[in-house]
Amino acid sequence: MIDRFPAMQRALDEATAAAERGEVPVGAVLVSPDGAICASAGNQTLADRDPSAHAEMLAIRKACAKVGSERLPGFDLYVTLEPCAMCAALISYARIRRLYFGASDPKSGGLTVGPKLFSQPTLHHRPEVYGGIMEREASELLKDFFQQKRAHSE
Amino acid sequence: MIDRFPAMQRALDEATAAAERGEVPVGAVLVSPDGAICASAGNQTLADRDPSAHAEMLAIRKACAKVGSERLPGFDLYVTLEPCAMCAALISYARIRRLYFGASDPKSGGLTVGPKLFSQPTLHHRPEVYGGIMEREASELLKDFFQQKRAHSE
Repeated sequence: MIDRFPAMQRALDEATAAAERGEVPVGAVLVSPDGAICASAGNQTLADRDPSAHAEMLAIRKACAKVGSERLPGFDLYVTLEPCAMCAALISYARIRRLYFGASDPKSGGLTVGPKLFSQPTLHHRPEVYGGIMEREASELLKDFFQQKRAHSE
Repeated sequence: MIDRFPAMQRALDEATAAAERGEVPVGAVLVSPDGAICASAGNQTLADRDPSAHAEMLAIRKACAKVGSERLPGFDLYVTLEPCAMCAALISYARIRRLYFGASDPKSGGLTVGPKLFSQPTLHHRPEVYGGIMEREASELLKDFFQQKRAHSE
Protein backbone atom coordinates (compact mmCIF):
# COMPACT_ATOMS: atom_id res chain seq x y z
CA MET A 1 0.00 0.00 0.00
CA ILE A 2 2.75 2.39 1.06
CA ASP A 3 4.76 1.62 -2.06
CA ARG A 4 1.82 2.36 -4.32
CA PHE A 5 1.30 5.87 -2.95
CA PRO A 6 4.63 7.24 -1.73
CA ALA A 7 3.34 10.81 -2.03
CA MET A 8 0.32 10.00 0.15
CA GLN A 9 2.63 8.32 2.66
CA ARG A 10 4.61 11.56 2.80
CA ALA A 11 1.37 13.51 3.24
CA LEU A 12 0.47 11.19 6.14
CA ASP A 13 3.90 11.90 7.67
CA GLU A 14 3.12 15.63 7.44
CA ALA A 15 -0.26 15.01 9.08
CA THR A 16 1.41 13.04 11.90
CA ALA A 17 3.89 15.88 12.46
CA ALA A 18 1.00 18.36 12.54
CA ALA A 19 -0.75 16.31 15.25
CA GLU A 20 2.46 16.33 17.30
CA ARG A 21 2.42 20.14 17.13
CA GLY A 22 -1.20 20.16 18.36
CA GLU A 23 -2.66 21.02 14.94
CA VAL A 24 -5.53 19.15 13.27
CA PRO A 25 -3.63 16.36 11.45
CA VAL A 26 -3.86 17.05 7.74
CA GLY A 27 -0.93 16.82 5.34
CA ALA A 28 -0.46 17.63 1.67
CA VAL A 29 2.13 16.92 -1.01
CA LEU A 30 2.52 18.31 -4.52
CA VAL A 31 4.08 16.12 -7.18
CA SER A 32 5.50 17.88 -10.24
CA PRO A 33 4.93 16.62 -13.79
CA ASP A 34 8.24 14.70 -13.73
CA GLY A 35 6.99 12.66 -10.74
CA ALA A 36 9.18 14.28 -8.07
CA ILE A 37 7.82 15.68 -4.81
CA CYS A 38 7.91 19.46 -5.25
CA ALA A 39 6.45 20.65 -1.94
CA SER A 40 4.83 19.31 1.19
CA ALA A 41 3.18 20.82 4.25
CA GLY A 42 1.10 20.06 7.28
CA ASN A 43 -1.73 22.11 8.69
CA GLN A 44 -0.36 24.97 10.82
CA THR A 45 -3.20 27.42 11.40
CA LEU A 46 -2.42 27.67 15.13
CA ALA A 47 1.36 27.98 14.88
CA ASP A 48 1.10 30.62 12.14
CA ARG A 49 -2.00 32.25 13.64
CA ASP A 50 -3.28 32.21 10.09
CA PRO A 51 -6.75 30.76 9.31
CA SER A 52 -5.63 30.13 5.73
CA ALA A 53 -2.67 27.94 6.72
CA HIS A 54 -4.25 24.63 5.69
CA ALA A 55 -1.88 21.94 4.42
CA GLU A 56 -3.04 22.24 0.79
CA MET A 57 -2.80 26.04 0.82
CA LEU A 58 0.75 25.95 2.19
CA ALA A 59 1.91 23.22 -0.21
CA ILE A 60 0.48 25.06 -3.22
CA ARG A 61 2.06 28.37 -2.12
CA LYS A 62 5.42 26.66 -1.65
CA ALA A 63 5.25 24.96 -5.05
CA CYS A 64 4.23 28.21 -6.81
CA ALA A 65 7.16 30.03 -5.17
CA LYS A 66 9.52 27.23 -6.24
CA VAL A 67 8.25 27.10 -9.82
CA GLY A 68 7.84 30.90 -10.10
CA SER A 69 4.30 30.74 -11.41
CA GLU A 70 0.80 31.18 -10.00
CA ARG A 71 -0.29 28.12 -11.99
CA LEU A 72 0.82 24.51 -11.68
CA PRO A 73 -0.53 22.64 -14.72
CA GLY A 74 0.47 18.99 -14.73
CA PHE A 75 0.98 18.94 -10.95
CA ASP A 76 -0.83 16.42 -8.75
CA LEU A 77 -1.91 17.11 -5.17
CA TYR A 78 -2.08 14.43 -2.49
CA VAL A 79 -3.92 15.40 0.69
CA THR A 80 -4.94 13.22 3.62
CA LEU A 81 -8.40 14.81 4.01
CA GLU A 82 -10.99 16.01 1.50
CA PRO A 83 -10.22 19.70 0.85
CA CYS A 84 -12.52 22.43 2.19
CA ALA A 85 -14.13 24.99 -0.12
CA MET A 86 -11.23 27.43 0.38
CA CYS A 87 -8.61 24.89 -0.67
CA ALA A 88 -10.78 23.41 -3.43
CA ALA A 89 -11.11 26.86 -5.03
CA LEU A 90 -7.35 27.36 -4.77
CA ILE A 91 -6.73 23.94 -6.36
CA SER A 92 -8.83 25.12 -9.29
CA TYR A 93 -7.03 28.50 -9.56
CA ALA A 94 -3.65 26.74 -9.50
CA ARG A 95 -4.78 24.46 -12.36
CA ILE A 96 -3.81 21.30 -10.45
CA ARG A 97 -4.15 18.28 -12.76
CA ARG A 98 -5.17 15.53 -10.32
CA LEU A 99 -6.33 15.57 -6.73
CA TYR A 100 -5.88 12.45 -4.61
CA PHE A 101 -7.41 12.60 -1.15
CA GLY A 102 -7.62 10.21 1.80
CA ALA A 103 -10.56 10.57 4.18
CA SER A 104 -13.81 12.21 3.19
CA ASP A 105 -14.98 15.13 5.32
CA PRO A 106 -18.75 14.92 5.75
CA LYS A 107 -18.74 17.97 8.05
CA SER A 108 -16.54 20.56 6.38
CA GLY A 109 -15.61 19.09 3.01
CA GLY A 110 -15.89 21.29 -0.05
CA LEU A 111 -16.31 18.55 -2.66
CA THR A 112 -18.62 15.75 -1.58
CA VAL A 113 -20.89 17.89 0.62
CA GLY A 114 -21.95 21.53 1.04
CA PRO A 115 -20.62 23.80 -1.68
CA LYS A 116 -19.56 20.80 -3.87
CA LEU A 117 -17.12 23.13 -5.49
CA PHE A 118 -16.03 21.03 -8.45
CA SER A 119 -19.67 20.61 -9.48
CA GLN A 120 -20.05 24.36 -9.99
CA PRO A 121 -20.41 25.32 -13.66
CA THR A 122 -18.78 28.71 -12.91
CA LEU A 123 -15.43 27.08 -12.22
CA HIS A 124 -12.75 27.60 -14.90
CA HIS A 125 -10.79 24.46 -14.15
CA ARG A 126 -11.49 21.29 -12.23
CA PRO A 127 -8.95 18.55 -11.54
CA GLU A 128 -9.48 14.83 -11.88
CA VAL A 129 -10.44 13.67 -8.35
CA TYR A 130 -9.61 10.37 -6.67
CA GLY A 131 -10.84 9.87 -3.09
CA GLY A 132 -10.25 7.16 -0.49
CA ILE A 133 -6.47 6.86 -1.05
CA MET A 134 -5.00 5.37 2.17
CA GLU A 135 -8.22 6.50 3.79
CA ARG A 136 -7.92 4.26 6.85
CA GLU A 137 -4.57 5.74 7.89
CA ALA A 138 -5.78 9.31 7.39
CA SER A 139 -9.03 8.71 9.28
CA GLU A 140 -7.29 7.06 12.21
CA LEU A 141 -4.92 9.99 12.61
CA LEU A 142 -7.89 12.37 12.78
CA LYS A 143 -9.92 10.10 15.08
CA ASP A 144 -7.03 9.66 17.52
CA PHE A 145 -6.35 13.41 17.52
CA PHE A 146 -9.92 14.39 18.36
CA GLN A 147 -10.28 11.58 20.94
CA GLN A 148 -7.18 12.81 22.77
CA LYS A 149 -8.41 16.40 22.55
CA ARG A 150 -11.73 15.42 24.08
CA ALA A 151 -9.99 13.38 26.80
CA HIS A 152 -7.87 16.42 27.74
CA SER A 153 -10.84 18.76 27.88
CA GLU A 154 -12.92 16.48 30.12
CA MET B 1 -20.88 58.86 -0.34
CA ILE B 2 -17.15 58.77 0.30
CA ASP B 3 -17.64 60.10 3.83
CA ARG B 4 -20.14 57.40 4.65
CA PHE B 5 -17.81 54.54 3.70
CA PRO B 6 -14.21 55.65 4.30
CA ALA B 7 -13.07 52.02 4.56
CA MET B 8 -14.64 51.19 1.18
CA GLN B 9 -12.98 54.27 -0.31
CA ARG B 10 -9.65 52.94 0.95
CA ALA B 11 -10.49 49.52 -0.56
CA LEU B 12 -11.19 51.28 -3.89
CA ASP B 13 -7.79 53.01 -3.63
CA GLU B 14 -6.20 49.58 -3.17
CA ALA B 15 -8.11 48.30 -6.21
CA THR B 16 -6.93 51.27 -8.29
CA ALA B 17 -3.33 50.61 -7.24
CA ALA B 18 -3.75 46.95 -8.19
CA ALA B 19 -4.96 47.93 -11.68
CA GLU B 20 -1.89 50.17 -12.09
CA ARG B 21 0.28 47.11 -11.36
CA GLY B 22 -1.61 45.13 -14.02
CA GLU B 23 -3.57 43.06 -11.51
CA VAL B 24 -7.34 42.56 -11.57
CA PRO B 25 -8.53 45.59 -9.56
CA VAL B 26 -9.90 44.33 -6.28
CA GLY B 27 -9.12 45.89 -2.90
CA ALA B 28 -9.93 44.96 0.68
CA VAL B 29 -9.79 46.64 4.08
CA LEU B 30 -10.25 45.23 7.57
CA VAL B 31 -11.68 47.46 10.26
CA SER B 32 -11.02 46.47 13.86
CA PRO B 33 -13.71 46.54 16.56
CA ASP B 34 -12.59 50.05 17.65
CA GLY B 35 -13.33 51.37 14.14
CA ALA B 36 -9.73 51.82 13.00
CA ILE B 37 -8.39 50.42 9.75
CA CYS B 38 -6.26 47.43 10.77
CA ALA B 39 -5.08 46.13 7.38
CA SER B 40 -5.58 46.71 3.69
CA ALA B 41 -4.45 45.03 0.49
CA GLY B 42 -4.96 44.86 -3.24
CA ASN B 43 -5.03 41.77 -5.38
CA GLN B 44 -1.47 40.65 -6.23
CA THR B 45 -1.67 37.13 -7.61
CA LEU B 46 0.63 37.99 -10.53
CA ALA B 47 3.26 39.96 -8.59
CA ASP B 48 3.45 37.30 -5.87
CA ARG B 49 3.00 34.41 -8.32
CA ASP B 50 0.53 33.11 -5.74
CA PRO B 51 -2.98 32.05 -6.80
CA SER B 52 -4.18 32.66 -3.23
CA ALA B 53 -3.05 36.31 -3.15
CA HIS B 54 -6.54 37.81 -3.44
CA ALA B 55 -7.11 41.15 -1.70
CA GLU B 56 -9.31 39.66 1.06
CA MET B 57 -6.86 36.80 1.72
CA LEU B 58 -3.93 39.20 2.05
CA ALA B 59 -5.82 41.66 4.25
CA ILE B 60 -7.01 38.89 6.59
CA ARG B 61 -3.51 37.40 6.83
CA LYS B 62 -2.05 40.84 7.61
CA ALA B 63 -4.68 41.53 10.29
CA CYS B 64 -4.19 38.10 11.91
CA ALA B 65 -0.43 38.68 12.02
CA LYS B 66 -0.98 42.12 13.56
CA VAL B 67 -3.48 40.90 16.15
CA GLY B 68 -1.62 37.63 16.83
CA SER B 69 -4.67 35.41 16.39
CA GLU B 70 -6.13 33.19 13.68
CA ARG B 71 -9.56 34.65 14.48
CA LEU B 72 -10.83 38.22 14.12
CA PRO B 73 -14.18 38.41 15.93
CA GLY B 74 -15.69 41.88 15.80
CA PHE B 75 -13.73 42.81 12.68
CA ASP B 76 -15.49 44.07 9.54
CA LEU B 77 -14.22 43.43 6.02
CA TYR B 78 -14.75 45.86 3.14
CA VAL B 79 -14.02 44.49 -0.32
CA THR B 80 -14.72 46.06 -3.70
CA LEU B 81 -15.92 42.80 -5.32
CA GLU B 82 -18.05 39.93 -4.06
CA PRO B 83 -15.63 37.38 -2.57
CA CYS B 84 -14.96 34.08 -4.33
CA ALA B 85 -15.52 30.72 -2.59
CA MET B 86 -11.90 30.62 -1.38
CA CYS B 87 -12.11 34.01 0.30
CA ALA B 88 -15.66 33.46 1.56
CA ALA B 89 -14.53 30.29 3.38
CA LEU B 90 -11.59 32.17 4.87
CA ILE B 91 -13.91 34.99 6.02
CA SER B 92 -15.91 32.35 7.88
CA TYR B 93 -12.82 30.71 9.44
CA ALA B 94 -11.56 34.12 10.60
CA ARG B 95 -14.93 34.79 12.28
CA ILE B 96 -15.32 38.18 10.51
CA ARG B 97 -18.37 39.99 11.92
CA ARG B 98 -19.62 41.91 8.89
CA LEU B 99 -18.80 41.75 5.20
CA TYR B 100 -19.42 44.81 3.04
CA PHE B 101 -18.83 44.31 -0.68
CA GLY B 102 -19.13 46.56 -3.74
CA ALA B 103 -19.83 44.90 -7.08
CA SER B 104 -21.48 41.51 -7.38
CA ASP B 105 -19.58 38.85 -9.33
CA PRO B 106 -22.05 36.83 -11.38
CA LYS B 107 -19.21 34.80 -12.95
CA SER B 108 -16.92 33.81 -10.11
CA GLY B 109 -18.65 34.99 -6.94
CA GLY B 110 -18.87 32.62 -4.00
CA LEU B 111 -21.93 34.11 -2.32
CA THR B 112 -24.70 35.11 -4.73
CA VAL B 113 -23.98 32.41 -7.34
CA GLY B 114 -22.34 28.99 -7.62
CA PRO B 115 -21.28 27.57 -4.26
CA LYS B 116 -23.31 30.19 -2.32
CA LEU B 117 -21.00 29.58 0.55
CA PHE B 118 -22.81 31.41 3.32
CA SER B 119 -25.98 29.43 2.55
CA GLN B 120 -24.21 26.16 3.44
CA PRO B 121 -25.50 24.61 6.67
CA THR B 122 -22.05 23.01 7.24
CA LEU B 123 -20.45 26.43 7.85
CA HIS B 124 -19.54 27.18 11.48
CA HIS B 125 -19.77 30.95 11.21
CA ARG B 126 -21.29 33.33 8.70
CA PRO B 127 -20.88 37.11 8.78
CA GLU B 128 -23.61 39.67 8.26
CA VAL B 129 -23.41 40.55 4.55
CA TYR B 130 -24.08 43.92 2.88
CA GLY B 131 -23.64 44.14 -0.90
CA GLY B 132 -23.71 47.03 -3.36
CA ILE B 133 -21.59 49.42 -1.25
CA MET B 134 -20.08 51.99 -3.68
CA GLU B 135 -20.87 49.41 -6.34
CA ARG B 136 -20.66 51.85 -9.27
CA GLU B 137 -17.07 52.84 -8.50
CA ALA B 138 -15.98 49.23 -8.02
CA SER B 139 -17.70 48.06 -11.22
CA GLU B 140 -16.20 50.87 -13.29
CA LEU B 141 -12.68 50.02 -12.16
CA LEU B 142 -13.20 46.41 -13.24
CA LYS B 143 -14.90 47.34 -16.51
CA ASP B 144 -12.14 49.80 -17.47
CA PHE B 145 -9.45 47.27 -16.60
CA PHE B 146 -10.88 44.48 -18.76
CA GLN B 147 -11.68 46.88 -21.62
CA GLN B 148 -8.07 48.06 -21.70
CA LYS B 149 -6.84 44.48 -21.48
CA ARG B 150 -8.99 43.48 -24.47
CA ALA B 151 -7.85 46.57 -26.42
CA HIS B 152 -4.20 45.60 -25.84
CA SER B 153 -4.73 42.03 -26.93
CA GLU B 154 -6.48 42.92 -30.18
